Formats: sequence, structure tokens, C-alpha cells
Amino acid sequence: MGEFRVGVIGGGQLARMMLVPAIELGINLKVFAEAEGSSASLGVTQVGDYTRIEQIAEFAKTVDVITFDHEHVPISVLEALEADGVKVQPPSKALNFAQNKLSMRLRLNEIGVAMPRWAAVETAAELDSFIAENDGKAVVKTPIGGYDGKGVRMVTSSKDVADWLKPVQLAKSGGKLLVEEKVAFVREVAQLSARTPSGEFKPWPLVQTTQVNGVCDEVVSPAPGATPQLHMRAAEMANQIAKGLGVTGVFAVEMFETEDGRLLVNELAMRPHNSGHFSIEGSVTSQFEQHLRAVLDLPLGDTAARAEVALMMNLLGVDDEVDFFNGFDAALAAYPSAKIHTYGKSPRQGRKMGHVTVLGESLASCRAQAEGCAMILRSL
Amino acid sequence: MGEFRVGVIGGGQLARMMLVPAIELGINLKVFAEAEGSSASLGVTQVGDYTRIEQIAEFAKTVDVITFDHEHVPISVLEALEADGVKVQPPSKALNFAQNKLSMRLRLNEIGVAMPRWAAVETAAELDSFIAENDGKAVVKTPIGGYDGKGVRMVTSSKDVADWLKPVQLAKSGGKLLVEEKVAFVREVAQLSARTPSGEFKPWPLVQTTQVNGVCDEVVSPAPGATPQLHMRAAEMANQIAKGLGVTGVFAVEMFETEDGRLLVNELAMRPHNSGHFSIEGSVTSQFEQHLRAVLDLPLGDTAARAEVALMMNLLGVDDEVDFFNGFDAALAAYPSAKIHTYGKSPRQGRKMGHVTVLGESLASCRAQAEGCAMILRSL
Repeated sequence: MGEFRVGVIGGGQLARMMLVPAIELGINLKVFAEAEGSSASLGVTQVGDYTRIEQIAEFAKTVDVITFDHEHVPISVLEALEADGVKVQPPSKALNFAQNKLSMRLRLNEIGVAMPRWAAVETAAELDSFIAENDGKAVVKTPIGGYDGKGVRMVTSSKDVADWLKPVQLAKSGGKLLVEEKVAFVREVAQLSARTPSGEFKPWPLVQTTQVNGVCDEVVSPAPGATPQLHMRAAEMANQIAKGLGVTGVFAVEMFETEDGRLLVNELAMRPHNSGHFSIEGSVTSQFEQHLRAVLDLPLGDTAARAEVALMMNLLGVDDEVDFFNGFDAALAAYPSAKIHTYGKSPRQGRKMGHVTVLGESLASCRAQAEGCAMILRSL
Repeated sequence: MGEFRVGVIGGGQLARMMLVPAIELGINLKVFAEAEGSSASLGVTQVGDYTRIEQIAEFAKTVDVITFDHEHVPISVLEALEADGVKVQPPSKALNFAQNKLSMRLRLNEIGVAMPRWAAVETAAELDSFIAENDGKAVVKTPIGGYDGKGVRMVTSSKDVADWLKPVQLAKSGGKLLVEEKVAFVREVAQLSARTPSGEFKPWPLVQTTQVNGVCDEVVSPAPGATPQLHMRAAEMANQIAKGLGVTGVFAVEMFETEDGRLLVNELAMRPHNSGHFSIEGSVTSQFEQHLRAVLDLPLGDTAARAEVALMMNLLGVDDEVDFFNGFDAALAAYPSAKIHTYGKSPRQGRKMGHVTVLGESLASCRAQAEGCAMILRSL
């Protein structure tokens, strides 16, 4: 049979972290990056424009399956690959739902998944009417192109998104805006899972996520206080979504947990996800290994936890200077059990530059270590 | 401060496995390989002859510190680098002991470390006299160039190494042979540790190793039944050796445990070692991460265990065909908790092609899984 070859489109930190299990398992991972000097540069075999079918087709000839570091490759490009017999995981029909939040909401509705109340609106009047019906507030999202808090606004009036409602801008969003009720959640959680083309499905335990300004700050696995029933229900929802949308590979379902114990689907990510970085140390099988296994249609690995608690904290860029290396010595000395990950990116405020994971028996101890470590790295 | 740059001489599986923590921590790891298509090819920045000082000097200019995948770089080359101000870890004066088993025995004697009885012999008469004094049997080693059971013979008479005693061959071994008593050990153990140039020292728990035909077959961490006192004594011996020989980086002390509870030093390896592969999953800090931290003189990481038991089994080449990929599917399906590592090498009988690690609560269960997994991979 010889070696397995996986092609990843996108050279970000997710592709970088896929290199690790590729080295371990002996999988030949090739990365198509948009520019030189990317986070995953060690694996880059081609640099180009992922919107150009001829470039992607050339890349696809060198691998057994194509997968992704991000969800921005045009569906038309992927459809052309598939028509040419190239294996694309997740396939274009699934990725389409990840690229268009309105299509995603419609499809989740069809398969009966619990969500916040939502509507597609084209005019200020429609939007104001939705706001009025939902306690005077709502969340407006551009259906296309948003991520990490971009393309999402909390509103109390259509005036708050007057710019998005202008015809030219509205056309860029696909002609409509998505408006959702502002859920009074007690916390945010995420269900990470993997599904193979053959249909094997394997979830990780439900995790608790904390966002700051719409960007993931902290992930705790398992979600503190979650009952076995909650874990099971979240996993069942993920399985239902994976089947209903045809998802393959690792994917994350971000959800709101409400006071009355409901789980409402907020966002979907059809790739390894920030909420799963804890699994590198915290699980028998990391999300990056599982993703490679899944897209190659190999049997999935055990997702059991390696410790009582795993806590991951993101290292966001402080400014254009702090690269998290000046404090390395001090951080390693003070926190010998903390696992520091850096992504090889040039510093920029708010940019995801790395993360820290700590495993242990107590959440408080893990958090204290991760916070202490992150504080040293950020401040120097 | 910017990024850290480490140069590794040698492109084997040890360099390959160093790439993993390099990616995770954000260390720029560069590999000097002897040929194209090496196990660590992903990290190779120069291909050449490691016995040529001008080539190694060129490589050294691109990194902050030089370290090793193997112990075969001529001491004269390393001394020339050091004279030129290049940081070499472990330094030439330490590596010298790893390259010459007779020098090693002499030095261990000076610092008072327990060893098998030994002698340096030049003639058949001297050897036969040693054999006679040691119950009619002994182990003869060529002081230079042996590894993985090569250059080691069990003898009952000087006739068994008549070829090694011929003047031309004897000269290649440095003019003398090393002869050691055949220790009646109850088992073999290994003490893996790391030491930084600043003098920080950190051991892992003592492990039990099983050799087949002089090649490592299985490693169990911690060594079953080892008392805290035994762990402590082994770690103290390793510390004494590291200080006495000036070792830096990760190193392994292979020892015999005798029926009366003594630990006798058999071999030293001044680099990450087969007896430490379990630490990739089994320890908070793997030997490969620790080695990078040590050679960069960064603070060392926690070496605590991630599970009650970690068991590693080597995957040795079966023949020139079996590359361990044909059984991948079946092995992953049958053993979802087993972590399979392959080294990207072309198959050859007896070659170290990969390994399998299983963590768990019971040795029997870990061994059954690792053996089952290895059996599938070997047989297909």
C-alpha cells in the first residue's frame, strides 16, 4: 500500500499542528499555502492562490486526499476537483454549509437541530420587526465570510448595521443578513467530533469555551459539571449534524447552554478547531491525528481523556513586538508542567500566536498555571 | 530574543522525532543529513558528510547550537567547532566517552560508579585469563563503533573473537578490546535523564528494558516493582555520571539490575534513546522536547508520568517488503488506544522502522495491546 498522502489547503496553525501526527504516524502531509513563510511552512510543497482551480488541481495530483486549514476555498473549485475524481474531505456539499451561515441554518432546521430563533432579513424593517419580537435585541451575522467575531454584531436597532444593509454590501453577503435571538446562555460549550467517509463517528467529551471579544480565550475539557446525559446529548447532536450535512473529518459544533439545560447550536467549523487544541496533550488521540485518520478513511482513535482536567488558554498577539519568546525562559522555569505552543507567526495585536495547555486534577490549579504562564509570555 | 535555532547532525528517527516538539514550541530545527530521503527529511537543510569539518562548520553558522541524532561525528570535528566558538551539546569532551567504551569505563571507574568487572585486553592470553577468572565466560566489546548489539560478543574463549584480535582489526578498535564479566542480572533497566549546560538535572522514572538479539524490543515505564529507593538510586547514578562526564542534553544509562539489588552500568547513550520513546505520550515532557530545552539551556520540563503504565514496543523490519502500512487499517481498528509511530524508512530486516506505545493502568493490558498491534503490522 505504501505511504498515505494528505494535501492541506491553507498554511495556518491548523496545518502546522497536523504536521505533528503526520510525522508520528508516517503520513506524507503536503501543504498548499497562500504565501511564503506561513505557519505551516515546514510542510509547504506549493505556494499559490487557492481560488485558482488550475493551481489546486496541480496540487491535488500529488496527494490521495484534499483537506483544509480553513473554510474559504470557493465551492466551485472544490466541485471541479470532485468532478475530476479527487477525494475532498469534507466534501464541497458539506463545506457549503460552513461557508454560508444562512444555508447552514436552513439545513439544521430541516434536520431538526435546536438553535436560537433566527430569520433571514433583507430590509431594515424586517430586521427591526425581528428585534421587536425578541426583547429589543438581536445578533446580526453576515452569512458569508465571517470568523473569530468578524461579521457578527450585537444590535438593538437596524441602524446598528445600516452599513451592512446598503445594497452593495448586502450583495457581498449573499443578498440577505442572518439575524438571531440573543440567547441568555449560562455558558458556551463546544462538541468536537470526527466522522469518516465510511460513517464512523467519534466524539470527544463536551468542552466549555470562553470567548473574549468574539475570540476563543479559554477551553476546559471536560465542561465542568456536565452530566453524562449532557455529554451524550451533545454528541448525538454532533452526529445528527455530521450525517445531515455530510461532514467528514474533525468538526466543531459551538453551542449555547441555557439555564433550562438546552443546547442551542451557534456555529459550525468543519476542520480541527481552537476548542480542540487541548486534545494534543489531553486526549489519547489529538484532533489533528483524528482529522488525518478521518480524511484518509482510516479507523478513528480513542478520544478518552489523559487527565481529569485539560485547560487550554490562547496566546493572542499583544502588539507588533511581543513574539512570546522573550519570556520563554521565565515561563518554562515557573511552569514546568505547562505545554507552550507557538505558531511561528509574526506578532500582531489580537492574532492567534500560540496557546498553552495544562493537564491536572483540579481546574483551579490548571487555570492558575496557564494564566501565570500566559501572563509571563505576554508581558515580556 | 526571537526564535531559537537548533542544528541536529544526523537525519535518523531521533532527529525526526525532535521535529515534533520543535513544531510545538516554535523552535527552528535544522537537520544535517548524510543522504537525501532520510527519516528526518522534513527538517533537512543540508545534506553532506559529517566527517568533513568545512561542511559541518557551514551548517553550524545557521543555528545557535549543534546537537546530535547519533554519536559518530569525529571528536576532531567537534573540537574544531568548539574552538571556533560554536556551542556543541553534548560537548566533545563528553561525547568522547560515548565513542570509546574503554575511555568510558576508565572515567566511570575514576568517579566511582558501579559497573561489571572489566579489563582492557590486547592479547588472547590476557582475554583467556580474564575469562578464567570470571567463571569461564565474558562479554567482549570493540571499544569503538559498536551499537545495537554490533561489536558485542558473548565468549567462553579468546577463539570466539580471534578475528577481532588480529592486528589490523585490533588497530581499528583502538588497539585494545574491552572485556566485561557476564553479569547474572535479573533484568535490564535504563535511566533516562537530561542535564543543561547550566547544570539543571532532571530524571525520568527508571524503566525496564527487554533486548532481543542485542536490540531493544520492549520498554516499560516505570520499571515494574521498582521501589522509590531504586528510582532514587538510579537517578543519583545518572546525575553523578552526567556531572563526571560533562554530559548535556538527554542521555540514557543502561544498567543491569542484579539479584542482590545492585545497579551496574552497562552502556551510555548521549542523546535521546530508544528507552525513552515511551515519554512521547507517557510523560508530561517527552525526551525529545527535553533534549531541545536542554541543549538550548532552557529550563527543563516536568518528567511526571501521564499514566500508571507506559509500554513501548519496537517495530523492527521484517524483510525488504513489509513497511507497516498494509496493516495500518486493521491495527488502528483493533487497537484504538495504541499510538503507532513509523519512521519513514525503507524496509530492511531488523531495521528500527517504528514503534508502538500504549498507556494504561495495567501492564498486562498495555502489553497485550502493543503486542497485538505490532503483530498485525508485522504480518501484513
